[in-house]
Amino acid sequence: MKQSQLFTKTSKTVSADIKIASHKFLIQAGFISESVAGRYYFLPLGMRVRDKVIKIIEEEMNKAGALKLITPVLHPLEFWKETARTESVGFELMTIKDRNGSGFVLGGTAEEMMVDLVRKYNISYKDLPFNIYQFSQKFRDEMRARGGLLRVREFLMKDAYSFHADEEDFKKEYQKMWDTYMNIFNRLGLETVVVESDNGYIGGDYCHEFVVKSEVGESKFFISEDGKYASHEDTAKFKKEDKNNTEEEKELREVEANRGKTMEDGVKFHNLPLWQQIKDVLFINEKGEYILAIIRGDLDVNETKLKNISGAIDLRMATDEEVRAIGSEPGFISPVGIDKKVKVIADESLRTIKNAYGGANKKNLDLMNVNIDRDFKTEIEGDIAMAKSEFESLDGSILKEDKGIEVGNIFQLGYHYSKKMNAKFVDNDGQEKFYYMGCYGIGVDRTVATIVEKYNDDKGILWPESVAPFKVHLISLGKNEEAENIYNDLIKSGVEVLYDDREVSAGEKFADSDLIGIPYRVVISKKSLKNGGAEIKKRNEKESRIVKIEDITKEIN
Amino acid sequence: MKQSQLFTKTSKTVSADIKIASHKFLIQAGFISESVAGRYYFLPLGMRVRDKVIKIIEEEMNKAGALKLITPVLHPLEFWKETARTESVGFELMTIKDRNGSGFVLGGTAEEMMVDLVRKYNISYKDLPFNIYQFSQKFRDEMRARGGLLRVREFLMKDAYSFHADEEDFKKEYQKMWDTYMNIFNRLGLETVVVESDNGYIGGDYCHEFVVKSEVGESKFFISEDGKYASHEDTAKFKKEDKNNTEEEKELREVEANRGKTMEDGVKFHNLPLWQQIKDVLFINEKGEYILAIIRGDLDVNETKLKNISGAIDLRMATDEEVRAIGSEPGFISPVGIDKKVKVIADESLRTIKNAYGGANKKNLDLMNVNIDRDFKTEIEGDIAMAKSEFESLDGSILKEDKGIEVGNIFQLGYHYSKKMNAKFVDNDGQEKFYYMGCYGIGVDRTVATIVEKYNDDKGILWPESVAPFKVHLISLGKNEEAENIYNDLIKSGVEVLYDDREVSAGEKFADSDLIGIPYRVVISKKSLKNGGAEIKKRNEKESRIVKIEDITKEIN
Repeated sequence: MKQSQLFTKTSKTVSADIKIASHKFLIQAGFISESVAGRYYFLPLGMRVRDKVIKIIEEEMNKAGALKLITPVLHPLEFWKETARTESVGFELMTIKDRNGSGFVLGGTAEEMMVDLVRKYNISYKDLPFNIYQFSQKFRDEMRARGGLLRVREFLMKDAYSFHADEEDFKKEYQKMWDTYMNIFNRLGLETVVVESDNGYIGGDYCHEFVVKSEVGESKFFISEDGKYASHEDTAKFKKEDKNNTEEEKELREVEANRGKTMEDGVKFHNLPLWQQIKDVLFINEKGEYILAIIRGDLDVNETKLKNISGAIDLRMATDEEVRAIGSEPGFISPVGIDKKVKVIADESLRTIKNAYGGANKKNLDLMNVNIDRDFKTEIEGDIAMAKSEFESLDGSILKEDKGIEVGNIFQLGYHYSKKMNAKFVDNDGQEKFYYMGCYGIGVDRTVATIVEKYNDDKGILWPESVAPFKVHLISLGKNEEAENIYNDLIKSGVEVLYDDREVSAGEKFADSDLIGIPYRVVISKKSLKNGGAEIKKRNEKESRIVKIEDITKEIN
Repeated sequence: MKQSQLFTKTSKTVSADIKIASHKFLIQAGFISESVAGRYYFLPLGMRVRDKVIKIIEEEMNKAGALKLITPVLHPLEFWKETARTESVGFELMTIKDRNGSGFVLGGTAEEMMVDLVRKYNISYKDLPFNIYQFSQKFRDEMRARGGLLRVREFLMKDAYSFHADEEDFKKEYQKMWDTYMNIFNRLGLETVVVESDNGYIGGDYCHEFVVKSEVGESKFFISEDGKYASHEDTAKFKKEDKNNTEEEKELREVEANRGKTMEDGVKFHNLPLWQQIKDVLFINEKGEYILAIIRGDLDVNETKLKNISGAIDLRMATDEEVRAIGSEPGFISPVGIDKKVKVIADESLRTIKNAYGGANKKNLDLMNVNIDRDFKTEIEGDIAMAKSEFESLDGSILKEDKGIEVGNIFQLGYHYSKKMNAKFVDNDGQEKFYYMGCYGIGVDRTVATIVEKYNDDKGILWPESVAPFKVHLISLGKNEEAENIYNDLIKSGVEVLYDDREVSAGEKFADSDLIGIPYRVVISKKSLKNGGAEIKKRNEKESRIVKIEDITKEIN
């Protein structure tokens, strides 16, 4: 198309608040425009890129046998009540009533809609498995939108849902989707790390994020040096080495401890190692119940793991008043003799130590030689610890922290939704059985931004050919018929070309071309014609070269 | 694709409430599924059709130089306040607040969003005109949804908005969009009538509907026998022939009239023609103001015209009590001596008669020889009459009533939005001027349904090739390798084929094939192979013919 006919224009500057390359360049070059915070227009250039991303995702999903459909944007609220997600999603959920008083959710994901659709059909084991997907606008009522398309309140998502007779069959699909995602991101020019992650409010037992490493990403993860293990910080497991757990258990005793409230105060006062101290963190869940998380002193509590193990939807730290209200004391909390209404959840690291020390639920009193089982009982014991760089993975490789942008995710859902929504098929023994499910998402808009994060320089974007808005940026300097002819020739041979026919300076044209980032730049000027043709240069090349007019199309294809 | 892998299935019956062919067949054949009333899933087969409709619209819009983009689904409520559409749209508008308390509209159309986008740019006359469009989900909080995809609460719409320096330039675009729509509907297999229509809450001075004639449509219109004039019933103009308007004006007098309240009662009592009687209809607008519509007795008041001429957003008939409250009497209302707070709006037909008769604002009293100007004044005089079949168009051709489905519309908006939203460009004299605008819509989902309304028989759908979900329905009767080979050959040669590989009876396969309505049916069976190949038949043909296996692809292309 002719650039004079693009109603959008590049801008020389953007707001100083904009720090991130993709945010800056997508706005500056006219790919997107912000409506209100976190809600964006995709402008003509941006639409071309987004449509190409969509096409690649669609082709690969279809190749994997998935079926495209689309659900209404408004999801009946009653379905979200069936799965209790009106509670678990929390403030991010947007709801609306129609004039008849019926309630609807503006969907963030569509598990309920897909399960409701499927449960209307009489489906036999012979019809299984199937994987149905859509591209549709999703809504998240984020408190803060940031980073352009990286964290928004409205976005296009490809969400797929697979239905299976059993776990074994599901696992094949999970692997197929994993491979499909690798193909998709590969075609999009994105190298991804697949990291184990938390399933949040989606439900199910396990899931993986596809993360593109980036300094501006919000997904923190650990990856082992041998590359065999990668996990989000919320879920990363690590080896908890034995400390003194072969020691004899000594007698429990209470001592005066005129110390401050921190862990370091305890170490100094008793002159004992940090790891031998018990760290006690008192939480209150969304129902107002007390949860005491205890862990070895040199480790930290991972709230996501704690939420999952305790079944809490929301957790907050107890205040000093709340600590005292259950007869304990800030800085001196102990599982020993704690109020019976407190649920004690212990990290498995407490099995690596003996004769621990810590508070005695009274001010300036500590307990020495505290031992699990003998001195206190736990309600739940498991992994509630936060990994750190340099810790060892379970199979002994060193963990390194990294971060990136989550562009896709795949979830095992198991029976989570099918049981809650009573969705069944008829198995070959004639019995009705619940579907075993999975779901698979890609954030389309965020993917567009991530491509820009990976492909930019100080002058603008460098689009990979697979998603570039045009393949060729044809620039005419001064009026000349040749440019018009080349434009028509390129179009005839099926090349997507943006033709800068504007009456602006050469400098402005070159700056805009670098900013927009089309892979090939073809310049026609009196000078180039005198030199025998057009100047061609790829966006990532420094120097242009002269190509004869008649060879341009060949050169580009 | 293989039919065994379609998770949806055809059904033998549908609910008895479903009367309309498109509603019935689209559900029965598995193209769509209702979520809740007026909100539909497009299933895999339906998506294929819808995607083809979208592609055709997109190709033609691009050919016309329009630029595709997309706005957020949630429109800031403040923009709709700028244009006062929060009031004029009425109950159909859905609004929502986010957690920060910001209000949003779930858009029914996107004039505000497009104008807000455009007014952010510095646009010069050199950049004009441009036409920007999107495909996006639209919301209308209809009281009643009906007829499957014909009247829904959520639907995909192609909406385009053009920006111009002046009316002259706009008119070229209006014609271009008119032609583009003709091309689009032509490619979709739909013959349309272009009828003048009311602009409703969109604003602007004139607009046209593209209507496909159909018994199940809700758009009633009049078309002149010579085909030169077509107009929606809300807007249709007609010739109001002179009656006795050359008569001398006689003296106004009040007579006792012990009669009933209807127009017929007046005719009988006075033994005078219906046309000589004045018809008085008292309305109350949304502000509670009285409006008295008066018209020649043989004509009816057109409420849409009355709304437009009076500037009312909403009108309702006054109750008997309300008629008495202004000192008049039901059945005896008269503009002569009516309460001053009543706004009198007269149809121009009152200029075609003299010495009319009618009520005297008192029970059982009539006025004889009532003459406009002499006996009463009007606040507005114009066309508020409803056309009827057999009336004459303004240029003398007979009007016939017809009805159909509105699949598209084009609107002159003029300065309606640009002035309200202060959207300006810089003209070549350096002055800032308001944009002159138009907008252009196509209801994608309704278009899909309309195609089915036009292309069906008692067995199912007959898709036009341009939008058929597949070109070929390959049916294998009994297991045979040939079918699999032909399937692979067809795919290789780029033919879209649905392969019925299910283990069900021949009868079921044929019935499903007729229901789904794919243009070519190719049957492979032992019998057909013995007869030398495959049986080929078009969906609209009665008899099949044998084609050699190696000639199938050629036969179809």
